[in-house]
Amino acid sequence: MHNFIKFETQSTAEKLIETALQFKENPFLQKELGKDLRIGLIFLNPSLRTRASTQIAAKNLGMEAIVFNIDKEGWALEFEEGVIMNENKAEHIKEAAAVLGGYFDVLAIRAFPTLIDKKQDMADKVIHQFIKYSHKPVVSLESSSRHPLQSLADMMSIEETWKQDKKPKVVLSWAPHVKALPHAVPNSFAEWALGLEHELVITQPKGYELGEQFTKGAEIEYDQEKAVADADFVYIKNWSSYHDYGKLPEVEGNWLLQDHQLKESAKIMHCLPVRRNLELADELLDGSKSLVQLQANNRIYAAQAVLFEIISNMKS
Amino acid sequence: MHNFIKFETQSTAEKLIETALQFKENPFLQKELGKDLRIGLIFLNPSLRTRASTQIAAKNLGMEAIVFNIDKEGWALEFEEGVIMNENKAEHIKEAAAVLGGYFDVLAIRAFPTLIDKKQDMADKVIHQFIKYSHKPVVSLESSSRHPLQSLADMMSIEETWKQDKKPKVVLSWAPHVKALPHAVPNSFAEWALGLEHELVITQPKGYELGEQFTKGAEIEYDQEKAVADADFVYIKNWSSYHDYGKLPEVEGNWLLQDHQLKESAKIMHCLPVRRNLELADELLDGSKSLVQLQANNRIYAAQAVLFEIISNMKS
Amino acid sequence: MHNFIKFETQSTAEKLIETALQFKENPFLQKELGKDLRIGLIFLNPSLRTRASTQIAAKNLGMEAIVFNIDKEGWALEFEEGVIMNENKAEHIKEAAAVLGGYFDVLAIRAFPTLIDKKQDMADKVIHQFIKYSHKPVVSLESSSRHPLQSLADMMSIEETWKQDKKPKVVLSWAPHVKALPHAVPNSFAEWALGLEHELVITQPKGYELGEQFTKGAEIEYDQEKAVADADFVYIKNWSSYHDYGKLPEVEGNWLLQDHQLKESAKIMHCLPVRRNLELADELLDGSKSLVQLQANNRIYAAQAVLFEIISNMKS
Repeated sequence: MHNFIKFETQSTAEKLIETALQFKENPFLQKELGKDLRIGLIFLNPSLRTRASTQIAAKNLGMEAIVFNIDKEGWALEFEEGVIMNENKAEHIKEAAAVLGGYFDVLAIRAFPTLIDKKQDMADKVIHQFIKYSHKPVVSLESSSRHPLQSLADMMSIEETWKQDKKPKVVLSWAPHVKALPHAVPNSFAEWALGLEHELVITQPKGYELGEQFTKGAEIEYDQEKAVADADFVYIKNWSSYHDYGKLPEVEGNWLLQDHQLKESAKIMHCLPVRRNLELADELLDGSKSLVQLQANNRIYAAQAVLFEIISNMKS
Repeated sequence: MHNFIKFETQSTAEKLIETALQFKENPFLQKELGKDLRIGLIFLNPSLRTRASTQIAAKNLGMEAIVFNIDKEGWALEFEEGVIMNENKAEHIKEAAAVLGGYFDVLAIRAFPTLIDKKQDMADKVIHQFIKYSHKPVVSLESSSRHPLQSLADMMSIEETWKQDKKPKVVLSWAPHVKALPHAVPNSFAEWALGLEHELVITQPKGYELGEQFTKGAEIEYDQEKAVADADFVYIKNWSSYHDYGKLPEVEGNWLLQDHQLKESAKIMHCLPVRRNLELADELLDGSKSLVQLQANNRIYAAQAVLFEIISNMKS
Repeated sequence: MHNFIKFETQSTAEKLIETALQFKENPFLQKELGKDLRIGLIFLNPSLRTRASTQIAAKNLGMEAIVFNIDKEGWALEFEEGVIMNENKAEHIKEAAAVLGGYFDVLAIRAFPTLIDKKQDMADKVIHQFIKYSHKPVVSLESSSRHPLQSLADMMSIEETWKQDKKPKVVLSWAPHVKALPHAVPNSFAEWALGLEHELVITQPKGYELGEQFTKGAEIEYDQEKAVADADFVYIKNWSSYHDYGKLPEVEGNWLLQDHQLKESAKIMHCLPVRRNLELADELLDGSKSLVQLQANNRIYAAQAVLFEIISNMKS
């Protein structure tokens, strides 16, 4: 593995989950592997969980991590080719990526979508330009289109919890919110669940359908109650409209999931942060069905497995 | 010791001072103890001295420290139970504390008071909710009501400087300022000085009396000149009104201490930052009576002693 | 070497270049030297390259680096003596520098000029007060008047690239920009190039002459075409007027350098960040004449050589 920006193959994903679970057993199993290696964590958008879990993962492997909060440090990057940079952008991605590539052995980048320009967002220009100009392995810490470290932690959480031979029934359920949110988490969740051959049902209000490039192979069910009734795992998440890009079409009915709608053995999941009683009810978050803390904790080992594979590949 | 959020017992305090003085002698005495342990430093308000000294203290014990400047990273936390989170708070303390508790072995938190809602401030909700939901040891880096790491460094500075058998006479003296300041430092100073059985006199203008839960056992003297005349240590500090909470009642007379008011052997103390010639005159700060640099330096070893006790307790 | 704030002597500079090139060969040559030593990196102005390269340099020597983004943490420092601090400055440099000096073994400081008060800027008060009150070695991370770490990396880049016995012809060429920029980089570049006995020509529009204390010994040529025609190295950089301090006098002609103006073997240099097609054309930045990535990379080893000399001096 060189870069980690999306689901690649089922066998790669299964290998990563296995490695992540080994690191969860023993975080310091490979504490010398990353000695004298450095990772640069570049945030064009704020982060707490992702920053902390990736810093910890790097440290567990003996790597040094240095954080750049680009958004707060007023370092506006230019991504267009050939422009005359006479406005507010102080540096071109060509220089920025090459310099950081010269300073670090691995780069990890977070860049949220505009939620205005769909084509530009789906092209994930920031991360692809870092790959192009840094000449170093690049890890996505959430791009416009995907959040693969979250999905790896999510799949790891399902793997740990599900003890039956048959594949589980997994439901991705839209939830209410007050802001327009990106599609990266649900896109990736669908991509990984389908890639790992889970039975996936997606339920959302009309107008909130995700891009088909991510959901092909999933069953779409507009009736939430019906969708979740016999689900083994329900992943709760808000997202804005993809087709009427970034907009919030009016929603009919109450999409706040209730405990009684789920079977006793069902588990609920959320990537956090979660708005209580808006996206997910207290009774579910505080009850025994919740996997949210398990997922958050698994973020460390998901990142550690990814960095392990990248470093191992560099050294071989 | 599990948490460190206030003065507990005289014997605990004396033990911490002794340990801190040992680390001052040899900072790397226990440099392997914290190997593979992590502390999360969570700042809901800005900090330089406290952040640096705690990072250094952790490092001296071999621990990894990761800093979260929550205030600057736009991560508004919800502390109320049962609310529908449909306004500007992005995450509930229940999730935040549990996730950080899962990521770190020890948490340290700074949360200033509102200076508006006295009851809420005195309840120190932020720190108590972190204790409740993180399931990890919690260290106060200054809460609404107290600043115990500062007081430990202060008491250590008195211990180092005072060479007589009898207890010293310690005076806590109000000083002028241009802003409304919290009560955490004077509250804690009174709590620790009284707990260690120093003779404590508090002098302040009418209307600036501190809460009695902190000052019971101290002598109150409204005449500053009289209070400081035979003092061995004078702790200079501004605070706003506690009874007319957060307000700045009019002050009569000049409260800026003069060198000639003190006896030759007297020492002056301040927690820093200090506003020169407003709170404390140049002649005192630059003269031989000042302990302010000693106090600031002792912050490292105070934090190191606290982390040492917490880690030792975790491992036993 | 105790402090590093400007060019000192030719032999010191040559020694630093040699040491820097050795660290470039083997970054971990002295990885135990800085064990248990700490450097505080204090930024009164934003930084990415300088911060990262200095953090990496410190780490390569086994030192711990802690960063203070003073500008963003609202910590306004008072630099005047004897004032009553009743306005917005929360701490005096006397306390701040002494406390940080007590916490760290080495301090490194960035403080940009006002570009309004020339006399104050040229006095480099911030860095000199840190030297005066911290009682620790101080490294400039760019002051009002100079950027010596940049110049050391620049001279190192010329040294690596220039393979002839005679000294190279080096041209410092003014370039267009949209903002008023400081003089630190061109001042230092001239100081180091002349100090190392390179043949130096400076070309700029009328009104943009640098201070003579930096340029004495250089040839001044107002015709850019003529100046660069047979140059071996052209250092491109914008700066505001020095004599009409911080202003932007009107400029005649096109100062954006073209590839065809240079001889085939010429190299172009820039300290970055660079505004493409405003300061420097794509064809030059993306072509084989460019040394900009070499310079950026050399920043690590320049800083490492400086820290190595300072630590070695402390230990001897």
